[in-house]
Amino acid sequence: MPDSIHSTMMPVPLSLNHLLERAGTLFAGNEIVSRAPDKSLRRHRYKEFYRRTRALAAALQGLGLKKGDRVATLCWNHHAHLECYFGIPAAGGVMHTLNLRLSPEEIGWIAGDAEDRFLVVDDVLLPLYHQFAKLHRFERVIVFPFSGAAVPAEFTDYEALLGGADPDRFEYAPHGEDDPVAMCYTSGTTGRPKGVVYSHRSTVLHSLVGCLADFWCLRGTDAVLPVTPMFHANSWGLPYAAVMLGTKIVFPGPHMHPEDLLDLMTQEPPTLALGVPTIWMTLIQAYEASLAPGAPNHGRWTLPRGMKSLVGGAAVPESLIRAFAKYDILILQGWGMTETSPLATVSYPRAELQGASDDERFRRASLAGVPVPLVDLRIRGDAGSDQPWDGQSVGEIQVRGPFITGSYHGVGSPEDKFTADQWLRTGDVASIDPLGFVKISDRTKDLIKSGGEWISSVDLENALMAHPAVAEAAVIAIPDAKWGERPLACVVLRPEHKASAEEFAAHLAAKGFVKWQLPERYEFIAAIPRTSTGKFWKMKLREQFAGA
Amino acid sequence: MPDSIHSTMMPVPLSLNHLLERAGTLFAGNEIVSRAPDKSLRRHRYKEFYRRTRALAAALQGLGLKKGDRVATLCWNHHAHLECYFGIPAAGGVMHTLNLRLSPEEIGWIAGDAEDRFLVVDDVLLPLYHQFAKLHRFERVIVFPFSGAAVPAEFTDYEALLGGADPDRFEYAPHGEDDPVAMCYTSGTTGRPKGVVYSHRSTVLHSLVGCLADFWCLRGTDAVLPVTPMFHANSWGLPYAAVMLGTKIVFPGPHMHPEDLLDLMTQEPPTLALGVPTIWMTLIQAYEASLAPGAPNHGRWTLPRGMKSLVGGAAVPESLIRAFAKYDILILQGWGMTETSPLATVSYPRAELQGASDDERFRRASLAGVPVPLVDLRIRGDAGSDQPWDGQSVGEIQVRGPFITGSYHGVGSPEDKFTADQWLRTGDVASIDPLGFVKISDRTKDLIKSGGEWISSVDLENALMAHPAVAEAAVIAIPDAKWGERPLACVVLRPEHKASAEEFAAHLAAKGFVKWQLPERYEFIAAIPRTSTGKFWKMKLREQFAGA
Repeated sequence: MPDSIHSTMMPVPLSLNHLLERAGTLFAGNEIVSRAPDKSLRRHRYKEFYRRTRALAAALQGLGLKKGDRVATLCWNHHAHLECYFGIPAAGGVMHTLNLRLSPEEIGWIAGDAEDRFLVVDDVLLPLYHQFAKLHRFERVIVFPFSGAAVPAEFTDYEALLGGADPDRFEYAPHGEDDPVAMCYTSGTTGRPKGVVYSHRSTVLHSLVGCLADFWCLRGTDAVLPVTPMFHANSWGLPYAAVMLGTKIVFPGPHMHPEDLLDLMTQEPPTLALGVPTIWMTLIQAYEASLAPGAPNHGRWTLPRGMKSLVGGAAVPESLIRAFAKYDILILQGWGMTETSPLATVSYPRAELQGASDDERFRRASLAGVPVPLVDLRIRGDAGSDQPWDGQSVGEIQVRGPFITGSYHGVGSPEDKFTADQWLRTGDVASIDPLGFVKISDRTKDLIKSGGEWISSVDLENALMAHPAVAEAAVIAIPDAKWGERPLACVVLRPEHKASAEEFAAHLAAKGFVKWQLPERYEFIAAIPRTSTGKFWKMKLREQFAGA
Repeated sequence: MPDSIHSTMMPVPLSLNHLLERAGTLFAGNEIVSRAPDKSLRRHRYKEFYRRTRALAAALQGLGLKKGDRVATLCWNHHAHLECYFGIPAAGGVMHTLNLRLSPEEIGWIAGDAEDRFLVVDDVLLPLYHQFAKLHRFERVIVFPFSGAAVPAEFTDYEALLGGADPDRFEYAPHGEDDPVAMCYTSGTTGRPKGVVYSHRSTVLHSLVGCLADFWCLRGTDAVLPVTPMFHANSWGLPYAAVMLGTKIVFPGPHMHPEDLLDLMTQEPPTLALGVPTIWMTLIQAYEASLAPGAPNHGRWTLPRGMKSLVGGAAVPESLIRAFAKYDILILQGWGMTETSPLATVSYPRAELQGASDDERFRRASLAGVPVPLVDLRIRGDAGSDQPWDGQSVGEIQVRGPFITGSYHGVGSPEDKFTADQWLRTGDVASIDPLGFVKISDRTKDLIKSGGEWISSVDLENALMAHPAVAEAAVIAIPDAKWGERPLACVVLRPEHKASAEEFAAHLAAKGFVKWQLPERYEFIAAIPRTSTGKFWKMKLREQFAGA
């Protein structure tokens, strides 16, 4: 019999460090632009990014960072945050991006759960830091002087830290490809938020897949604008991919308003921009309002024709895709979640649609899309078997692949999140058509997506029902032109009790909800309809109120 | 201290089986076209490819194929060969592509060295099989009835084998991502050919990198024409990538002559074609000859404008790139070898060259290119240290990465092939410029050492081929009593063109060559002999002229 045979390939691990070295040597002259709090633009070259990132890594090691230690970031999208993306793993650490839009209580709890040792924070976010500082003690707080002001003496100055380190003498922490590089908490639809921990391997694989021509089609000659926050699933992985290919990056900093984004797009035209539908909606409205002669901002902006935009985080309305198509801007819809790195499906112009009508193409573009390479996807029906690809039969989307999480930090693989054969249960309900386009019919029922951020209806209901005047409360999503969705609370008062919307708002604020999480509207009703199994029948409530 | 932390990502292996399942479900309706020996076109859908491939895998398991067993192929580029690419690994086997252009003795030796158990062979190649059959006994010879004729009774009929197997009941052989999928022998410039064994992992990673927008820019809407034989480093990996994205594939079958390729390109226009420079040279000559009114084949062909072609396997003359640019066809040069899967560098339009002149862009395009992601590359000088990226200092190209071989089958990692720190020694001599463009001065053996100075035969060839009278040129070293070696140029003139040695000397001097670098002698010949891989066969030229 023949001898057994082995692959002769080198056992070289996938590594972010390889991407950083590429950037420093091959793309030294390419540009990284960051908008500062005062709206001025700061320009870097990849050469500086490379040296500063290595200096950061050397400095972190000098501070005693050890393999696997977590370094939290509380930052907007800018060049220093990019340095953390590569510098923290280069030193052997794990970058943990804190979501600055959560309540201070949540941020503090998450930092504690992750056992973050250090924190890198924008100076402009120090007021937020002070609100949760008592909940978790970081060994060291490193302040990035984003505004240009002097860093308070009780903190470590990010720039001084880098200035005191020698990038030339830095040596990468040894690692395997499964070692962690970054950590991000889910929005916690049920129970506490849970940590997803990405590896060198998952991050490099996700970068390669995202860059494919049918998706981002990323080239070295591109200029990318990551509007998606760097604390949301690593800005969907775009910063890693841009560094891999030496692509120009334009960071919006803290200025995410439509006017600010239009100013930035006019000044530094991107070829690819990532964002959520609500931002793109307000942006196109602002742009079109400016077109009328004599309108405010008339003539101020130029849309980057030929630009492509991957939009996700919530369903993308067909009207939005058509609105941008008028200006030669291609909206590609993607679907995914923190657990999926996040790209799991993309709706792109399939070969089969080449002869299709505009209507047909736009219809497909408004679907969640087709599974990307390396992602296995199935629609599991209630009966526990896979649904046919008929565009009709619905079930839960379940996914599996090398950049999809198989557990949660410190929690393991709970049964409500993973199947017995180790697929991720996404909680989203969908059908899939014969061309593989996923159509999400009923997004995770108990969630409200407002401006790209999740609001848990369960959490609001529980808090409302803790109010002495409330018998029952059900919170549903209602469509909102600006934010996509907003919460509406249906409240059943206890007999002979009274309470106003203002009282509920104060009550919820006292429970730690921040302003944008508060219900938009209250409906006082006699009873909440129930399903046969006794659960709140939210579908009925939506029928009754969502159109109002 | 914080607890240690682990990535939470799923341990899902990279796998060709995943690509096959994608193709069968997502791309069922897309097309695979194969040209038969009688030049008719056979059309398949991916759905058939998927079912036939699973049937092949089931049949191989039925024949007793065990994990790691080698199945050789002796086939042209066609759909059944593609089925072997995926079906053999799906069954747990290793596809070993035999190079039909080698001598029967070499093929037999290689089959023996690989211990091939089974053979899949085109019926039109049975005469070749009979010439080496005595050197290695295959347990079973499976004949693909490519010509349509009945398969001789002593062999297994490929179609009957598939017809007797049930694709629906097939189950993939369990595997890890480092398990072998394919095997290819190097051309063995020194000593015996040596086997390189690719894995699921290396093949998937190479596919992702090749598909990137700066390189193949492969989309589902593309149509690819792999002219590069499927027995040459897996047709440079293109078949795997095409299946991953559901791209239409046009296989040329056994017809590789320029007229045949032009016919095929006219009938089934590709958007991407891979091949070696010599084929593209004769193809553009044939096409341009047909343009003259009244010329043979006038009006017969349409070049696929907008097509892209990755050309490699030998240096690509600037004149070739310019010739195709006239017809809006972009030639991208790549460099690599069997050991590197093979893409290691690609010359693509870098961001830095966006404002450059045509001359500058064409000059860069004629270089070997920039290392692709996941490939580390260094130029090691004689002193054993890395050369600076100055475009001047030469040394050996050494590479490292997850799709580069770290050893050879049954041979290990000999010192002349691998450095002490486990980089591959390619044997090619090059410099690298500040933008990372590798310029290959020569294969070590093709350098001409004249009076203690190196002369690059590649530079002389490229300059000569830029002369309007020259169709092809190959430069070799001839022994010289005074200088050690001197360059001799073998020139093939274009039809109805003339040029003298004096004119060439003036032409080269104008290109910047100094006197001692000029060819000592010119030989005007009818054709330059080719190796089995289509490269200039300089050894033959040396035998013919070096003694004169």
